[in-house]
Amino acid sequence: MHFRCEKKDLVEGISTVQKAIQGKSTMQVLEGIYIETTSEGLILRGTDIDLSIETKVPATVVEDGTIVIDSKLFGEIVRKLPNSEVDVLTTENNTITVTCENSVFNLLFLNADDFPDLPEIGRESGVEIRESLLKNLITATNFAVALDEARPILMGVLFEVKNSVLNMVALDGYRLALRTENLDSVDDFSVVIPGKTLNEVNKILSDSTENVSISFNDNHIMFRIKDTKIVSRLLSGDFIKYESILPSDYRLSFTTSKAVLHDSIERASLMSKDGTSNLIKMNIDGGRMVITSNSQFGKVREELSITSKGEPIEIAFNSRYLIDVLKVIEEDEIMFEMTSSVSPCIIKNRIKDNCKYLVLPVRIAR
Amino acid sequence: MHFRCEKKDLVEGISTVQKAIQGKSTMQVLEGIYIETTSEGLILRGTDIDLSIETKVPATVVEDGTIVIDSKLFGEIVRKLPNSEVDVLTTENNTITVTCENSVFNLLFLNADDFPDLPEIGRESGVEIRESLLKNLITATNFAVALDEARPILMGVLFEVKNSVLNMVALDGYRLALRTENLDSVDDFSVVIPGKTLNEVNKILSDSTENVSISFNDNHIMFRIKDTKIVSRLLSGDFIKYESILPSDYRLSFTTSKAVLHDSIERASLMSKDGTSNLIKMNIDGGRMVITSNSQFGKVREELSITSKGEPIEIAFNSRYLIDVLKVIEEDEIMFEMTSSVSPCIIKNRIKDNCKYLVLPVRIAR
Repeated sequence: MHFRCEKKDLVEGISTVQKAIQGKSTMQVLEGIYIETTSEGLILRGTDIDLSIETKVPATVVEDGTIVIDSKLFGEIVRKLPNSEVDVLTTENNTITVTCENSVFNLLFLNADDFPDLPEIGRESGVEIRESLLKNLITATNFAVALDEARPILMGVLFEVKNSVLNMVALDGYRLALRTENLDSVDDFSVVIPGKTLNEVNKILSDSTENVSISFNDNHIMFRIKDTKIVSRLLSGDFIKYESILPSDYRLSFTTSKAVLHDSIERASLMSKDGTSNLIKMNIDGGRMVITSNSQFGKVREELSITSKGEPIEIAFNSRYLIDVLKVIEEDEIMFEMTSSVSPCIIKNRIKDNCKYLVLPVRIAR
Repeated sequence: MHFRCEKKDLVEGISTVQKAIQGKSTMQVLEGIYIETTSEGLILRGTDIDLSIETKVPATVVEDGTIVIDSKLFGEIVRKLPNSEVDVLTTENNTITVTCENSVFNLLFLNADDFPDLPEIGRESGVEIRESLLKNLITATNFAVALDEARPILMGVLFEVKNSVLNMVALDGYRLALRTENLDSVDDFSVVIPGKTLNEVNKILSDSTENVSISFNDNHIMFRIKDTKIVSRLLSGDFIKYESILPSDYRLSFTTSKAVLHDSIERASLMSKDGTSNLIKMNIDGGRMVITSNSQFGKVREELSITSKGEPIEIAFNSRYLIDVLKVIEEDEIMFEMTSSVSPCIIKNRIKDNCKYLVLPVRIAR
């Protein structure tokens, strides 16, 4: 194998496929980057079996070939090369010679035959979404996936289309995030995508208005972002019937400034950091919300103006769950809906009806 | 006690004195910030006994008093307050009430009687140095102090004036850093300042041209930077006679570009990272330097143009020691002086004779 390419293109390709590569693997080949020459340049691929990322790098190919090269070492070397043309040539003894200006590296490579193929998806079902919108949808929901493995299906985000409406839903037993978006004439489907996959997809997505093409079969999903393919296994099993969890009614609703509420809760939570509960209390009555929290070190009281409708309520939350929602919800003015101090609370945009966040309150002794 | 001050002034004061406060201490009072009202505002102080930092914060004092308040919690709270006036008032049960706009915190405080006083320095000896110059002097030397406690005196930087020349010297048994500066008519003196102290002093120094006043007695040194006093204990004992370590002659000298050499060594050291020696070899012959390194994963060869005078040499180094020097040395063109593969190597500016770095080579089998 022999090719030449620009250092910056190679760095970009390596950074992309490294997102699928775990630091250490029991299979040495999985710690490597697969490099294949094609008529158009290079194909780079990284995988941890569950998640595979493949991308293209423009290159002048002198002689065809495929190798697998240690991802960490090769990545560090290429990043530190001068901004110039890089020449990569396989020589005897499973060695590649990497030359760039006055730097010459000789590195051992691994046999590419053992490297896993990219899972085949076919094109059974699919949908196209603008890159920037997909980024927004993932950010709005993925934070709420379960992190513990007690119920593996909850470690993923439900990605379903019903009557041309896309619903993305994540929940972990304490809170739920739902984001919806109208799509043009797409057939109904429903898959559950691992949260870890969406994290990596999100890092690769830009704010571009180009379309990402998403296709899947029973076991795998593929995101195609420009020259990059991300293939991940899907989670198997049925997702929770989330519609039945969302309350249909409420007895108190109020609107408030997202930024003011965020800062007040951040301050109040300083007093509840020591425990694991991050407990803060909210007292809502008419146009006023009072947030309090206390610990062995002292106490705090925050007062906010709100616009409310309904009965007064005293309710307690894990402040972290509220902060998580306030960080991703889009509008500056947001709306809360509550029924009692033990019923789920709903948070949504004041105007645009494209998301719903549910947070369970914490029961408090009176 | 009752005072009012601007949040940003209070944050600045807290950040300054926190540099002397360790996270956890066996004495609870040392985890706190001492606050005292004066006719001009507030005095804030933090200490870990070895190092104390005191600064002033402009404030309107309504009622005099002194308290000690938990540094971490108080710091976090004040940083998160709105950018507005902060009102601090002591109330019953050893509590302070911190009010800012619609936020009210009640925090326990500690009795200030147990808080250590700032050590008295008097003004036995002293010197004045421009802030930006002192910053430069510390950066140029402090990296070379010993980190292990085998010889405590080497954990500090020698700070001596001889015939109106200031010498700052640090060494750790493998390398030495010497930076000199002409001062106007200052009496001779010699003290050893803990490296840890200089680290914190460096963080507080700005690039201003104002003078820092430095004064000391047998046990302590005080840096006065605008409204801030930093007092540290000095290390006791005699410093190494460093002049006898510096070679007076050499058999090969060469000049090279600092940036090109830095990048070449950085790349070469990628191949030697696995061991603890970070071993790289240099082969210097005429106008050419070849740097090589190899490990189980492969090898690297870097070639540089240099301007040399003297006999060819093959010599090996711990790359980290060279990189440390290249990061702080001032000029873009630098000069090396070598005698043999087992003799100390000297690195200095090509033109300005105000620093000398010594690095011991690593003996290699041939």
